[in-house]
Amino acid sequence: MPKNILYAQSGGVTAVINASACGVIEAARAAKGRIGKVYAGRDGIIGALTENLIDTSRESAASVRALMNTPGGAFGSARYKLPPIDKDRRPFERLIEVFRAHDIGWFLYNGGNDSMDTCAKIARIGAELGYPVAAIGIPKTMDNDLVETDTCPGFGSVAKYVATSMREASFDVASMARTSTRVFVMEVMGRHAGWVTAACGLAAEERDDGPQILLFPELPFDEAQFLAKVKATVERVGWCTIGVSEGVRRPDGKFLAESGLTDAFGHAQLGGVAPMIADLVKRELKYKNHWAVCDYLQRAARHIASATDLEQSYRMGVAAVKTALAGQAGVMMTIERVSAKPYRWRVGTVPLARVANRERKVPRGYISRDGFSVTPACREYLTPLVRGEAPPPFRDGLPRFVKLANHPVQKKLPKRFEI
Amino acid sequence: MPKNILYAQSGGVTAVINASACGVIEAARAAKGRIGKVYAGRDGIIGALTENLIDTSRESAASVRALMNTPGGAFGSARYKLPPIDKDRRPFERLIEVFRAHDIGWFLYNGGNDSMDTCAKIARIGAELGYPVAAIGIPKTMDNDLVETDTCPGFGSVAKYVATSMREASFDVASMARTSTRVFVMEVMGRHAGWVTAACGLAAEERDDGPQILLFPELPFDEAQFLAKVKATVERVGWCTIGVSEGVRRPDGKFLAESGLTDAFGHAQLGGVAPMIADLVKRELKYKNHWAVCDYLQRAARHIASATDLEQSYRMGVAAVKTALAGQAGVMMTIERVSAKPYRWRVGTVPLARVANRERKVPRGYISRDGFSVTPACREYLTPLVRGEAPPPFRDGLPRFVKLANHPVQKKLPKRFEI
Repeated sequence: MPKNILYAQSGGVTAVINASACGVIEAARAAKGRIGKVYAGRDGIIGALTENLIDTSRESAASVRALMNTPGGAFGSARYKLPPIDKDRRPFERLIEVFRAHDIGWFLYNGGNDSMDTCAKIARIGAELGYPVAAIGIPKTMDNDLVETDTCPGFGSVAKYVATSMREASFDVASMARTSTRVFVMEVMGRHAGWVTAACGLAAEERDDGPQILLFPELPFDEAQFLAKVKATVERVGWCTIGVSEGVRRPDGKFLAESGLTDAFGHAQLGGVAPMIADLVKRELKYKNHWAVCDYLQRAARHIASATDLEQSYRMGVAAVKTALAGQAGVMMTIERVSAKPYRWRVGTVPLARVANRERKVPRGYISRDGFSVTPACREYLTPLVRGEAPPPFRDGLPRFVKLANHPVQKKLPKRFEI
Repeated sequence: MPKNILYAQSGGVTAVINASACGVIEAARAAKGRIGKVYAGRDGIIGALTENLIDTSRESAASVRALMNTPGGAFGSARYKLPPIDKDRRPFERLIEVFRAHDIGWFLYNGGNDSMDTCAKIARIGAELGYPVAAIGIPKTMDNDLVETDTCPGFGSVAKYVATSMREASFDVASMARTSTRVFVMEVMGRHAGWVTAACGLAAEERDDGPQILLFPELPFDEAQFLAKVKATVERVGWCTIGVSEGVRRPDGKFLAESGLTDAFGHAQLGGVAPMIADLVKRELKYKNHWAVCDYLQRAARHIASATDLEQSYRMGVAAVKTALAGQAGVMMTIERVSAKPYRWRVGTVPLARVANRERKVPRGYISRDGFSVTPACREYLTPLVRGEAPPPFRDGLPRFVKLANHPVQKKLPKRFEI
């Protein structure tokens, strides 16, 4: 009997993580006879620990295909970090127990850098316990902060969303600035790495297009320089749009959003960098302003996903299965950029240990000298990632997403595992 | 010599107000010989007052057509309310002076209820001063709060955007709730009328789909009932998504988010209900939460515009020109719903005086008994308005918008007018 695959989603979901799931399931179905079933962890690694597995073989081909169009995590994802292995081996041993009970030959973990660390540890423990499991990482993070891959599935779609939104809002603000809002601030995700912030910059094609200012988490926030730039922009252009990372920090290293400030009216600050920046502009420069916080809308925006990103996400899933069948393990699948113009890429692999717990920030050469915009090199890097439209099907005017049946696999272990 | 048209955009812009402009210009070009040129006010009525007119005849047919795909106001819009006519007649007299100097026969004003009031006054003064000008209103407001028309151009696209975003975010939250965010709050526009809030409700198709809670500006915010509903929802479904209007009020009538500032029309300037609601949930129920504020993104979101809305916006512009040529004036163009299933509509007109300064709120029968969701009647009303996709062209992964040349018309009046 061929072994089964256990696939699990991990960490913050994206608009296209389910495309990787689709790739895994379709590739495994195509390899009938060599692979048994694809089980999925319900709520990611938690499902694996608690033996709450989902039998994807009971989903129709059409439902599996519809994963290509569906944001979020179809099997549930989790923010759950396993303990350090030298402090508490039990969760790892439990995972191997579950794998053994369900004849799991391959563990495919779809997540970011924490998940790649977990993936590596599971492989090690399996070998120690005499149940070798082939662990393979499938990259996923909207932040684009994984090392050793040209980009991360999930990021291109966020980039397309924020650049589109920023361009649209800038057209709005430009047309109203004579009597209304002069400064608009849009907050985007990316706590430590400013890739999403950088992507906002794609909205501007010509000098004086918005956004005229970006605030990166990689650079300390200099209030005086920022205000001078806003003022100069409004005086020259008539208005100013600003893309700001949720992770912008003061020179002392503290997040702006955590600095315990109150707003102009003495109300406690409720979180959100955008309102703080907007308030600063109002207080110091007296410009009428508005602000938006994209939050989950940006990482869930399947309706404006990048076709490039969607395809890469899918192919990461397919390639993980092929890699598994080829007998390779202990690696994360990667995207290698073969050429920039025309954009060409291929699938690669990297040892998990080289990815785990590392973080890739926006290099200084991608940020303009004054710190407020992106360089041509950054645009060249980003542009292919947002290219191509891949709208989901619509019904009654709204995108049509699939909800899988998610049939449980019958439990086999006598003991429950508390998490 | 045939008379010219003066077209002006007023108030907050939308994703499709330029489609009405396109309709006006294309219809006027098709009526060559009977209509001279279409001039546009630069920054709306301000351009008319200051004699800053734009000559649209110098734009290519392709540029005019590209207005169909471009959000914001292509000629600039303004939030500028003329004084009460009995207090200060000068601005009205000035407008007639400008009209006379530029041989304006028709004044087409593209705006909301304030603008329809202005439109009516201009017609009256023109007649008094012996320069009759045919004033026609073209409806535009994302709020959908104009009376006497089945819907307002601009609203259907906002509705499609917020419902899509809410559905996407709900799929995201549902998949992460086991270990992460349980409550997500999305703030939408609509200060006094909850039509946009209602549209969020379209995202839910089945019981327990998100959003499970909507907070309307039409109903006083009952904190205890709200918290009980959140708690019950999280306990039953595992998570809860909430659509909240910027204009939600306390039982004493005060806006939750009132900041003490007012805009040019004397309306209170609001900001940030979502973080207040999220904070309340965290404080009282201890649920991990996230929040988004859509702000301008919703009304600028041309990339997800409703095809129905786009067509209606365009046809309002075309019909205004036809109405002008038919010698009718003092009216606003309207959308009349002929049948609900299948959805059919036709163009109508209503005297300006019946529209001016009135506001249409969401009727109580469109809101569920508990006040937290929409009724089937509301869904039946809303659904046709969001139907149909009309994506703009994309280049390098981003929507391609037009920037018009906006050639000025040579000034003819000796005096400047200060505003």
